[in-house]
Amino acid sequence: MSASLSGVRALDAADPLRPLRGAFDLPDGVVYLDGNSLGAAPRVAGPRLRRAIAEEWAGGLVRSWNTHDWIGAPARIGAKIAPLIGARASEVIACDSTSVNLFKLLAASLERQAPRKMILAEAGDFPTDLYVAQGVERVMGGELRAAPAEALEAALGADVAVVMLTHVNYRTGARRDMARITRLAHAAGALVLWDLSHSAGAMRVDLDGADADLAVGCGYKYLNGGPGAPAYLYVAERLQAELVSPLTGWMGHAAPFDFVGDYRPADGIARFLAGTPPILSMLALECGVDLFASVDLAEVEAKAQRQADLFIARVEDRCAGHGLTLVTPREPAARGSQVSFAHPHAYEIMQALIARGVIGDFRAPDILRCGFTPLYLGYEDVWRAVEVLADVLETGAWRAPRFAVRNKVT
Amino acid sequence: MSASLSGVRALDAADPLRPLRGAFDLPDGVVYLDGNSLGAAPRVAGPRLRRAIAEEWAGGLVRSWNTHDWIGAPARIGAKIAPLIGARASEVIACDSTSVNLFKLLAASLERQAPRKMILAEAGDFPTDLYVAQGVERVMGGELRAAPAEALEAALGADVAVVMLTHVNYRTGARRDMARITRLAHAAGALVLWDLSHSAGAMRVDLDGADADLAVGCGYKYLNGGPGAPAYLYVAERLQAELVSPLTGWMGHAAPFDFVGDYRPADGIARFLAGTPPILSMLALECGVDLFASVDLAEVEAKAQRQADLFIARVEDRCAGHGLTLVTPREPAARGSQVSFAHPHAYEIMQALIARGVIGDFRAPDILRCGFTPLYLGYEDVWRAVEVLADVLETGAWRAPRFAVRNKVT
Repeated sequence: MSASLSGVRALDAADPLRPLRGAFDLPDGVVYLDGNSLGAAPRVAGPRLRRAIAEEWAGGLVRSWNTHDWIGAPARIGAKIAPLIGARASEVIACDSTSVNLFKLLAASLERQAPRKMILAEAGDFPTDLYVAQGVERVMGGELRAAPAEALEAALGADVAVVMLTHVNYRTGARRDMARITRLAHAAGALVLWDLSHSAGAMRVDLDGADADLAVGCGYKYLNGGPGAPAYLYVAERLQAELVSPLTGWMGHAAPFDFVGDYRPADGIARFLAGTPPILSMLALECGVDLFASVDLAEVEAKAQRQADLFIARVEDRCAGHGLTLVTPREPAARGSQVSFAHPHAYEIMQALIARGVIGDFRAPDILRCGFTPLYLGYEDVWRAVEVLADVLETGAWRAPRFAVRNKVT
Repeated sequence: MSASLSGVRALDAADPLRPLRGAFDLPDGVVYLDGNSLGAAPRVAGPRLRRAIAEEWAGGLVRSWNTHDWIGAPARIGAKIAPLIGARASEVIACDSTSVNLFKLLAASLERQAPRKMILAEAGDFPTDLYVAQGVERVMGGELRAAPAEALEAALGADVAVVMLTHVNYRTGARRDMARITRLAHAAGALVLWDLSHSAGAMRVDLDGADADLAVGCGYKYLNGGPGAPAYLYVAERLQAELVSPLTGWMGHAAPFDFVGDYRPADGIARFLAGTPPILSMLALECGVDLFASVDLAEVEAKAQRQADLFIARVEDRCAGHGLTLVTPREPAARGSQVSFAHPHAYEIMQALIARGVIGDFRAPDILRCGFTPLYLGYEDVWRAVEVLADVLETGAWRAPRFAVRNKVT
């Protein structure tokens, strides 16, 4: 790892992804290490939404469902997400939120897997995943078992209907071996549902290659789709005819505009749609996804890992003795595109960093989380972030009372 | 009803709502009678979204959840919708789609009403409502009974858990007596869930006055919230603590950012949120809702009814003998803000009208549907629409083969 500012500048100069930074509208003076919470804004998003509002909505009115193919947006955007996650275009569709999509796929899995009714998850995994599983458990008589990470494989018994796991853990950044776990689950007769929110767009993901069954993911993190962007879901082709969404809204009907009285699921992935999609947010998501068209994800992953290595090395060099504990695996293949350090005053330290333009994330109870988004983050940004962190720790700037005031969203 | 062009011009000149038309961006040469499918674009929507993208997303990045109160958008917009539907601010929240919200409230109703498990609906009501009820029936062991309109009241037995009805029928425009049906349902021990998609924003709606239990509604019709705008839901305050959403996503958690493992529903209406809201579409919805701030809904309703009366009178005068059959009730109090005529060639006739700039809606199998949106529709527009319709019928222009070509969305 480069131990000098000139060294990281050389890395930036040689970075094949560097030109992409210009495709994002980033504020001056900010080092953004929170693209894994909300991705940066593509420059095209503003003009695209202006056109969508002025020409398509105001000018075209209801006709734009046809003339501007709003009706095709979920499948079209799903097809563009597909290559980012190792899927075929016919296996992915953009819709609803990650939480709602989790509900659809968990409920459909339990139906298919009856009489098995256990959802096996990891304790401490992303809360909304566990919450949604609890909802499915409640209304469908399922049974959620949240096992510690090290006990997961042993828990894969003949009672497990579906294993639900995030590919990359939102707190620690640890990455699961998708192929191995999928193989073990299949051997036990279970389906696997992967949450790709913290991996897709930051690294290679190969659902089809892992023989995966189901997946969901978020549009507003590494895909840069805008705040609360619609999510997506994946169902392997071989399973599509066997699964029916519990959320049987008209957009998933075989013939939504025939207005017949009985629900008949569409063929293929469209059966997992529910209600009318929020077109403006969908089109912003499409702007983010389109930026990946020319990107080699192997290059993205390699850069993210180099940035993470640089970050860890610099923090351990510059911030030693200040009580930071590395939480993320050191081994690149074992982690996602983020590095987390624990500290008893993580909240205040992160607020002090944000006040100085280094925007990362606090995650309860004690995690400083820094995400690396190779499409727009430079190596020098990483260097600068650690310099600011070192200063905040050395000067004790984080002890100012204002940094202890809690925000609604933290 | 005014039977002369000068008469309708006088009505426009005296119309207290006339100035609002300037708040919408409407294309030249179009008479828009489909605001009940997709409402017109408020002029402020473009600048608002430009600011949201440039300043809030690009400039503020993840901080805008706090600094621009994105996190408060569902409750804030819900509180603005509340006065339009006779509800308290604490009873309404904007989120998800109408279909997803129906699922939440139907499922929560069945849980509360156990061992009752029947969902009573009207046969031929809006398809997505029936489809969603079928999904709830399937995964929760409910029992959907879709009774003909005239048999509904007799079907209100001791086995009914919840009655689900649209306030205004999407095809016929017939309006239900909300207070009466709610009273009858309560007498039978059932809850009532109203779908306000085709009434809210076009007429007075008084949920609290009717002692209503539950409601959902659409953001993109009379509320002018943009294509696929997020929907909203209403739960009477007295019921909120007794109902828990099946879609237990993190946004409905009592402390979403504590990231604890167990779901605990928020107090109040926020417990019916699921995943992260699509902020750009939410902010466009807010633009539409804000236009109602200065509007007297009694005036909106009176104008809509005068426009419907004018439309019916003119069609019966100008288009007699062309096979149009009025489907909508003549009595203003018995209908919504639309007029539907049946015709064996309704599809082709509507396509011919649209080609001439008169945009209404076809609804399968044989309905010409024209909606009246008093915020931006003038009386002269109504007059002109009928003149074009008369010409299309008299000349047989609709018989051109191109008008028989089916669109994806019709």
